[in-house]
Amino acid sequence: MTSAEKLVVARQLARLGVDIIEAGFPASSPDDLDAVRSIAIEVGNTPVGDDGHVPVICGLSRCNKRDIDAAWEAVRHARRPRIHTFIATSEIHMQHKLRKTPEQVVAIAKEMVAYARSLGCPDVEFSPEDAGRSNREFLYHILGEVIKAGATTLNIPDTVGYNLPYEFESLIADIKANTPGIENAIISTHCQNDLGLASANTLAGARAGARQLEVTINGIGERAGNASLEEVVMAIKCRGELLGGLYTGINSQHITMTSKMVQEHSGLIVQPHKAIVGANAFAHESGIHQDGMLKYKGTYEIISPDDIGLTRANEFGIVLGKLSGRHAVRSKLVELGYEINDQEFEDFFKRYKEVAEKKKRVTDEDIEALLSDEIFQAKVIWSLVDVQATCGTLGLSTATVKLIAPDGEEKVGCSVGTGPVDAAYKAVDQIIQIPTILREYSMTSVTEGIDAIATTRVVVAGDVSNNAKHALNGQSFNRSFSGSGADMDIVVSSVRAYLGALNKMCSFVGAVKASSEVPQNQSV
Amino acid sequence: MTSAEKLVVARQLARLGVDIIEAGFPASSPDDLDAVRSIAIEVGNTPVGDDGHVPVICGLSRCNKRDIDAAWEAVRHARRPRIHTFIATSEIHMQHKLRKTPEQVVAIAKEMVAYARSLGCPDVEFSPEDAGRSNREFLYHILGEVIKAGATTLNIPDTVGYNLPYEFESLIADIKANTPGIENAIISTHCQNDLGLASANTLAGARAGARQLEVTINGIGERAGNASLEEVVMAIKCRGELLGGLYTGINSQHITMTSKMVQEHSGLIVQPHKAIVGANAFAHESGIHQDGMLKYKGTYEIISPDDIGLTRANEFGIVLGKLSGRHAVRSKLVELGYEINDQEFEDFFKRYKEVAEKKKRVTDEDIEALLSDEIFQAKVIWSLVDVQATCGTLGLSTATVKLIAPDGEEKVGCSVGTGPVDAAYKAVDQIIQIPTILREYSMTSVTEGIDAIATTRVVVAGDVSNNAKHALNGQSFNRSFSGSGADMDIVVSSVRAYLGALNKMCSFVGAVKASSEVPQNQSV
Repeated sequence: MTSAEKLVVARQLARLGVDIIEAGFPASSPDDLDAVRSIAIEVGNTPVGDDGHVPVICGLSRCNKRDIDAAWEAVRHARRPRIHTFIATSEIHMQHKLRKTPEQVVAIAKEMVAYARSLGCPDVEFSPEDAGRSNREFLYHILGEVIKAGATTLNIPDTVGYNLPYEFESLIADIKANTPGIENAIISTHCQNDLGLASANTLAGARAGARQLEVTINGIGERAGNASLEEVVMAIKCRGELLGGLYTGINSQHITMTSKMVQEHSGLIVQPHKAIVGANAFAHESGIHQDGMLKYKGTYEIISPDDIGLTRANEFGIVLGKLSGRHAVRSKLVELGYEINDQEFEDFFKRYKEVAEKKKRVTDEDIEALLSDEIFQAKVIWSLVDVQATCGTLGLSTATVKLIAPDGEEKVGCSVGTGPVDAAYKAVDQIIQIPTILREYSMTSVTEGIDAIATTRVVVAGDVSNNAKHALNGQSFNRSFSGSGADMDIVVSSVRAYLGALNKMCSFVGAVKASSEVPQNQSV
Repeated sequence: MTSAEKLVVARQLARLGVDIIEAGFPASSPDDLDAVRSIAIEVGNTPVGDDGHVPVICGLSRCNKRDIDAAWEAVRHARRPRIHTFIATSEIHMQHKLRKTPEQVVAIAKEMVAYARSLGCPDVEFSPEDAGRSNREFLYHILGEVIKAGATTLNIPDTVGYNLPYEFESLIADIKANTPGIENAIISTHCQNDLGLASANTLAGARAGARQLEVTINGIGERAGNASLEEVVMAIKCRGELLGGLYTGINSQHITMTSKMVQEHSGLIVQPHKAIVGANAFAHESGIHQDGMLKYKGTYEIISPDDIGLTRANEFGIVLGKLSGRHAVRSKLVELGYEINDQEFEDFFKRYKEVAEKKKRVTDEDIEALLSDEIFQAKVIWSLVDVQATCGTLGLSTATVKLIAPDGEEKVGCSVGTGPVDAAYKAVDQIIQIPTILREYSMTSVTEGIDAIATTRVVVAGDVSNNAKHALNGQSFNRSFSGSGADMDIVVSSVRAYLGALNKMCSFVGAVKASSEVPQNQSV
């Protein structure tokens, strides 16, 4: 995600009522430091909810001074800053990855927790990475030592998603029973989903006494992801009495909106049968179930769609059409949770009008598709004027593209291809001349009906093979860039998405040139 | 899924080594009865695996004679047939849905289990629907009675996905401890995923003594789906010792292939972070994790991609290109697990050659996309000859389509639209004149690179509004039809998908006319 996208998501998380936002890993790149800092400055100082609380803003760091300095630099602007530092404690990680003895690991952990506190950070979280496979006695020892050094939260990660629920429950219970000084700290869970058990493990941890649960929207994360906020929250709402009367302050009405926003910005679309937030999660398809639902909803429904805000916007909100003016459209954006500046609004409104001319009713999904195309792109370097294509089974698909260059000049390219998108992308390449590889391409129509807006998503990477590298300023980098585009014409939306990704790549290649801080991004 | 698709999936399930295939609900439609019968005849009589066992073929039925008769008619051809009959036992279901007293429910269950046995079915499974919310004492009673009536397997469903793992574990343990005669039956689990806990609940049930686990590939199913076969199987493979030494006979090498096939035919695509079978399930993206993996794989990997057959075909299999002949292509299909007849192969090979002409390397994914486009469509009623389209930001997208009608005549239609797909679909509508609503539209490129094949999926429903209904022979029906199409040109693949869905609808409308068995399909 870009910094702008991260900030929008953080605002939404605050609205959702989360207590702590772990906003990034500031040492990983100057970009990420910027993103966490912007969130700390804005979201970390803006009261939300009925009680007017401000969420804690947290930055992740390994156990070394450089990482901790970067994290502190990013989060210190927040009213309630937190540094989260971690080091591996399992035999397999200490031996093969860290190449350190357990005693060395304890010494580093203590020293770095104390260092984070010494910078002025009042709140320090410590994680023994791969705790799920760590020796119990060693865990009690290192956790006791970091509490003495000033750690306020102890997070217990099942880093490889290896634990079964009852096993994770006893891990948390054992830590609570055996760690010296544990009464002065909060125990937290962090469960990976490699065996599909992350949410169950998180709830088991809560049952054993964990009072912070690390979760992600839609369950996204490394590999098979993490525990899902929406699953854990709704399980607690439905079955809290079985978990010793637990409750959360999450405003579940915002779950649907948050889920959509994270899908949009992360590009990670949830499956139709994803629990709580999947498109089918409340769809009763079999005749028997439909019959039951018609007779009495409680027969097959334990959560009402209203509880997660599923019907709110579409059923009760403002309905837009082609006669809607600036005021109505702007109100709709606020209702949907988007805050954009005047110039951005004018750009958006122009696109809105084009669509409203062709569609009877503009849905919330249409609005969101256009917004993310128009507003959440990186800086516009190349912009699209026109595209035109012919294609079909007769072969020789041809496309012509007109772009405006960074210097304001109009440039036209044309090309044949195996299909209209291939042809159009080759025409763009002819103008921009950055060698790329298309890694992913997908398209969805955002609403019913064939006059719907189609959203295209692409992921491109720089082609760093030897004969292409010169065009990237001789640079080699290991990252890809996503772009999304929305239009009622799938060829146009495809070109918009490609250009969005290329613009991100162009600004990154520029940024890399100016930076000397990140060694792996230097010329080779 | 069509009958042909169901049969292909059933063959693959047998290859995967599942013990029991619950193939459908024969009373729900003549189509489904046919599908289950074909599976019983073929898959239910074909030995698989090292031990040459034949899978049990099971048909679902409510507790009434008509359903049980239909199920028996479908499964009796299998060497090991089974009928699975169910009735709700929770207070909320008995009162609101069934409108029966507990005593009436017990009487019906006993009578219908005995009836199923009396037909000659040696193996009868019984489920107390919504067991997760049923009174314990009542469960022990009804289960004891159906065992006396001849039930061989007792399946305990958490129908609304309401249970927490430790709660479901004690439910199974209690049933095992308190049901009279339980030593003569197998206990089974059936967990829904509404709170994201289905796989955890299933494992908890196994820990408590369940020895049949009902699961689905990719976790698909009603609403948020069911427990995932791949999650449950891999958890047992990794952590069986914690489950009392449990193991399964599943050949996990076939998991990846099975998952892809079910995604293809069900149209339910798994999310990138789906455990085990998601595209990112084995992707290590953060620098820290990559570093660990390079040093020692065990740091972040508990399952090897090889264990689920992820790399088999692509790394070690036959690589196809434009020079590959019939023999190599046919061998590849066998390697991928597809068995098609000679005519189907010739149709497929023609499409293959067209693609191979344009692409350097034809991947397994390309093959599967073409296969499902070419082979697994319904009967071809209308077929595509040519399509041609122009589009772009200048507006007035126009498409021309040439189809061959059922009587062999060539027909041409042309139309403008908001985009090339809209225009092409309107041109098709002009020819076929069946009023439809496009419910879903999505597209993915199946491999990297923009010269990749794009697969389009659509779901259409008949437009049963009053002014359109006459075109559907005056019929009203509550179902939709899916189609998929594959081509390097996205407009062509979109038209193929649409035509696939329309052909299914045309044959269904025909079928409905001929049938008088299913009341809701009659004219209104």
